[in-house]
Amino acid sequence: MSQQDPDSLVRSDNPDHPANLIPSLCAKFWTLGWVTGTGGGCSIRDDDLVYIAPSGVQKELMKPSDIYVLSLAAQTDPHLRQRSYLRSPPAYKPSQCTPLFLAAFTRRRAGCCIHTHSHWAVLVTLLLERSGSSLFEINNLEQIKGFGRGPARPGNLGYHDTLRIPVIENTPHEEDLTEFLEDAMESYPDTYAVLVRRHGVYVWGDNVHKAKTQCESLDYLFQLAVEMTKLGLPWISEVTPVGPQR
Amino acid sequence: MSQQDPDSLVRSDNPDHPANLIPSLCAKFWTLGWVTGTGGGCSIRDDDLVYIAPSGVQKELMKPSDIYVLSLAAQTDPHLRQRSYLRSPPAYKPSQCTPLFLAAFTRRRAGCCIHTHSHWAVLVTLLLERSGSSLFEINNLEQIKGFGRGPARPGNLGYHDTLRIPVIENTPHEEDLTEFLEDAMESYPDTYAVLVRRHGVYVWGDNVHKAKTQCESLDYLFQLAVEMTKLGLPWISEVTPVGPQR
Amino acid sequence: MSQQDPDSLVRSDNPDHPANLIPSLCAKFWTLGWVTGTGGGCSIRDDDLVYIAPSGVQKELMKPSDIYVLSLAAQTDPHLRQRSYLRSPPAYKPSQCTPLFLAAFTRRRAGCCIHTHSHWAVLVTLLLERSGSSLFEINNLEQIKGFGRGPARPGNLGYHDTLRIPVIENTPHEEDLTEFLEDAMESYPDTYAVLVRRHGVYVWGDNVHKAKTQCESLDYLFQLAVEMTKLGLPWISEVTPVGPQR
Amino acid sequence: MSQQDPDSLVRSDNPDHPANLIPSLCAKFWTLGWVTGTGGGCSIRDDDLVYIAPSGVQKELMKPSDIYVLSLAAQTDPHLRQRSYLRSPPAYKPSQCTPLFLAAFTRRRAGCCIHTHSHWAVLVTLLLERSGSSLFEINNLEQIKGFGRGPARPGNLGYHDTLRIPVIENTPHEEDLTEFLEDAMESYPDTYAVLVRRHGVYVWGDNVHKAKTQCESLDYLFQLAVEMTKLGLPWISEVTPVGPQR
Repeated sequence: MSQQDPDSLVRSDNPDHPANLIPSLCAKFWTLGWVTGTGGGCSIRDDDLVYIAPSGVQKELMKPSDIYVLSLAAQTDPHLRQRSYLRSPPAYKPSQCTPLFLAAFTRRRAGCCIHTHSHWAVLVTLLLERSGSSLFEINNLEQIKGFGRGPARPGNLGYHDTLRIPVIENTPHEEDLTEFLEDAMESYPDTYAVLVRRHGVYVWGDNVHKAKTQCESLDYLFQLAVEMTKLGLPWISEVTPVGPQR
Repeated sequence: MSQQDPDSLVRSDNPDHPANLIPSLCAKFWTLGWVTGTGGGCSIRDDDLVYIAPSGVQKELMKPSDIYVLSLAAQTDPHLRQRSYLRSPPAYKPSQCTPLFLAAFTRRRAGCCIHTHSHWAVLVTLLLERSGSSLFEINNLEQIKGFGRGPARPGNLGYHDTLRIPVIENTPHEEDLTEFLEDAMESYPDTYAVLVRRHGVYVWGDNVHKAKTQCESLDYLFQLAVEMTKLGLPWISEVTPVGPQR
Repeated sequence: MSQQDPDSLVRSDNPDHPANLIPSLCAKFWTLGWVTGTGGGCSIRDDDLVYIAPSGVQKELMKPSDIYVLSLAAQTDPHLRQRSYLRSPPAYKPSQCTPLFLAAFTRRRAGCCIHTHSHWAVLVTLLLERSGSSLFEINNLEQIKGFGRGPARPGNLGYHDTLRIPVIENTPHEEDLTEFLEDAMESYPDTYAVLVRRHGVYVWGDNVHKAKTQCESLDYLFQLAVEMTKLGLPWISEVTPVGPQR
Repeated sequence: MSQQDPDSLVRSDNPDHPANLIPSLCAKFWTLGWVTGTGGGCSIRDDDLVYIAPSGVQKELMKPSDIYVLSLAAQTDPHLRQRSYLRSPPAYKPSQCTPLFLAAFTRRRAGCCIHTHSHWAVLVTLLLERSGSSLFEINNLEQIKGFGRGPARPGNLGYHDTLRIPVIENTPHEEDLTEFLEDAMESYPDTYAVLVRRHGVYVWGDNVHKAKTQCESLDYLFQLAVEMTKLGLPWISEVTPVGPQR
C-alpha cells in the first residue's frame, strides 16, 4: 500500500475485506436492534491493521469509505486521546469505543470486537444491579457451548459449565471504560465478553466468525435470561447429568 | 424550478432527495412497527420547501409521486385548514399531521420531523397516565447520550442526565394537537420530542440524520422502560458516578 | 378471457392484479407471523371474479399459478362443499376458508378478506374467554381511527369511540364457521372483522387497501391489548375529552 | 454421478435441490432466531442420499459447497462416530446432529429434519421442568391442525385433539442424545417432534414441506404457550364442542 493513497486501505472487491465486512455486519446488527440510533459498533483487526467504524454514523447506512484505519503497533499508549490514523474518513470523528476495541486487540490478540446496546444485555445488567451483583452467571443451557473456554484453554465450554460474564459500571465518557474493561479482562482471563452496566456489552473473538457467533450466542442467552426472570425461573440450576460423561 | 411543472419538485435521481428519502424512510419505519395501518408519518424541510407524505397511504408502499410540497414562508397561519401546496399528488388528501410538522419547522427550525404510533411510546403514556404524570423521565442509561441538550445548548445529554419528554393529551382531530404541541415546546424548550397520550410520539431534529437517530434512541428507551416496568425496575435511579468527572 | 385458457385468469404483468397481489401480500403477512405453517390466507374479489389461495401452501412461497378463481354469481349456495372453479391449480386443494371469504364478499360486498392466525388475536380471545366474554372492546386509542364506521355509515371511527369486534367459537372444521361468521355479521352490522376463539381473525374491507390497513390496525390493537393486560392496564377507559369537539 | 467428482452431488441449478435448499432454509431460520450462533441445523434426505449442513457454520451464510452428503444405506451403525461421506466440504467438520437426523430418516422414513434452538422451545422445556414433566401437551388451538396424526395414521390432528411432544433430557455431547431420541420415538410412535430440555427441538416430516410447516406450527404453539403462562392461561382446557361433529 502506498502512503500516497490511504484510501486504498478501504477499497477492495472482496466482501470479506474488513472495510466491506464492517458495514455489512453493522447493517445486520441494526436489524437485530444491537446498534440502534448510532449506538454500538464493530472493529476488525487484520494483523497490525485495525479497522474501526466512525462515531455517530447510522450503522445500517455505513460505507467502506467511512472506515478509520490505524496501526496497532504504533499505538504506544492505547488510552491516548489524540491518535494518529493511517486513513481517516473526511466527515466523521473517531469512535469513543476505539480504546476499548484496542484493549481486546492488544490484551487478547482478538481479531474482531463487537459492541452492542442490545436491550437484553442492558436488562441483564439492571437485574444484576438489583441483586447487588457484578457477574452474570448461567448454566445448563445448550447455547453455552457457543463460547470458547478461554484464550489459554482449548475447546469450548460444556453444557454443564457455568458461563460467567463480568459487569463493569458505566462511565460518563465511553473511553473512560477502558481501564475498567482491562481490569475485568485481568480478573476474568477466560472471558470473551464484558457487560457494561446500563449500557451494553463488548464481545470479542479470535476472528470475525468467532466474535460474531459468540456475540449472537450471548445475546440469545441474555434474552433467555430476561424471559426466565419474567417466568420466575432461575439462571443457575442443578441438573443431574445424563448420558456418558467423557 | 418552473411553475409549469410542479412534479419536478418530487423528481430526482438522488436517493437523498426528500421526495425519495421520505418513502425509503417510511418503508423502514413500517418494518419497525412505527407506521402500521397508514398511521404515523414523516416530513422533511429543505430550506423553505417542506415535503410531506399524504394522508392514508400505506407507508411501506409510498412513492415519490405521492408527496406534497409546500413553501414554509407562505404559511402565514400554519394552523390554517385550507393550505396552498406547490405540488399535490393526484389521488390523496393532505396529512392531518401537517400543522404539527410545521410547528417543528417554524418553532424549532427542524429539518425533519417523524411521527410514530410505536407500541412502546403508547404503552409509556399509559403507564404514566396510571401514575397521573405528563412527563416521561429516565436516567442513567447510555442511550440517553443519543439526544442533543437542546437547540440553544451545544452537545448531547450525558449518561447521568435525566431525559425528559413531555406528554400531551390526545384530541379527536389530529390537527387540534398543534396548540398543545406548541405549548409543550414552549414549556420544554430543550426537548426534541413530545409524546401524545394513547397515540404515539413526535420527534424532530436539525436534519434527517438527527431526527431519525433521536427517534430510534427514544423508541429504544421506551421499549426498555416498558420492559423495566414488567421486571419491577424503576425508570429513575441513583447511581454513584464512576470514572473521571469532567 | 377465453374458456380455452383458464390460466390466463392468473397471468398478468400488473403487480396489482389479484393473482400477483395475493402472493406478495401473503409473503408480507408471513414475515408478520400472521400465516405461519400454511395457516391463514387471503382472498381478493374483482367484480364477479374471486381469487383464492389454495389450502396447505407455504404462504411466503406462493405463486400466481397456485391461485383458484371462481365466479361469485355462480355460487348459488356459498356453503356448498362441492364448488365449480373457473380456474384451478394443478397440485392443490381448495382452501377451507373459501365459504368464509365468500361470506364477506356476498354479505358485505367486500373487495378483499384476510384471515390471520396472529398470536395477538388468539391471545385476546383467550383473555376474553377467561372473563366469559365474546366481544373485544377497546377505546381511547388513536389507532381506532383506522376503522370505518360501517358499510352504511360514512367516515371512520373517532378516537373516543369504542371499537367492538365479536368473537365466535371455533369449530373442528373451518367451513363450519361460516354460519357463525354470518350470524356475527348480522349481529354486528358495522364490524369489519370477526375474531375466532383459539384460532385467529377474519378482517375484510371494500378493497385490498382497506382490508390490509384495517387488518394491520387491528393486529396493532390486539398486541397493545395483550401488553396492556401484562402491565395491568384496562382496555376500556374513561378519558376526559380535550380540544374542540366537532 | 461419477465417483471422480463428488462435488457434483452439491451442484445444481435447481433451487429445490437439497444442496441449495438447505442454505436457503437455514438463512430463513436464522431470521426467525432458530439457528443463532451456529446452533441448530437442517438435513434433507433424497431417497438414499442424505444432505447435512456442517458443524459450526454461520447458518445465514451457508453455501451449497459447505454441505456433506452420505448414503443412508451405507450407515450400518448410525451411531458410528467415524462415518464415511460421499462428499465432504474442505473446511468443516461433520455436525454433531448427524446421528439424530439419521434416526429420523431410518426410524421414520422422514425426508427432512430440522433442529432449532428457538427460545420458545427452550422456555417450554424449562416450564415443564419446574412442574416435573417430560411431556408438552396443548389442545383446543387451531394451529394444532398443522400436524399429521402419525406415520401410520391418515390425516392431521383435529382442533380438539391434544398435541403431545415428549421432552428428553439434554446430554453434554449432542450425539449422545440419539438413543434418548430413539426411545422417545418408540414411546410416542405418532410424534413428529422431540423437545430437548434446555436445548431446543427436533422436528421432522415426510418431506421438506411437511418438516418446515410442522416446525413453524410447533414454534408458533411454543411461543403461544409461553405467552399464555405469562398471562396465567392454562395450556390444556375444556372446550364445549361447537358445530357439526363429523
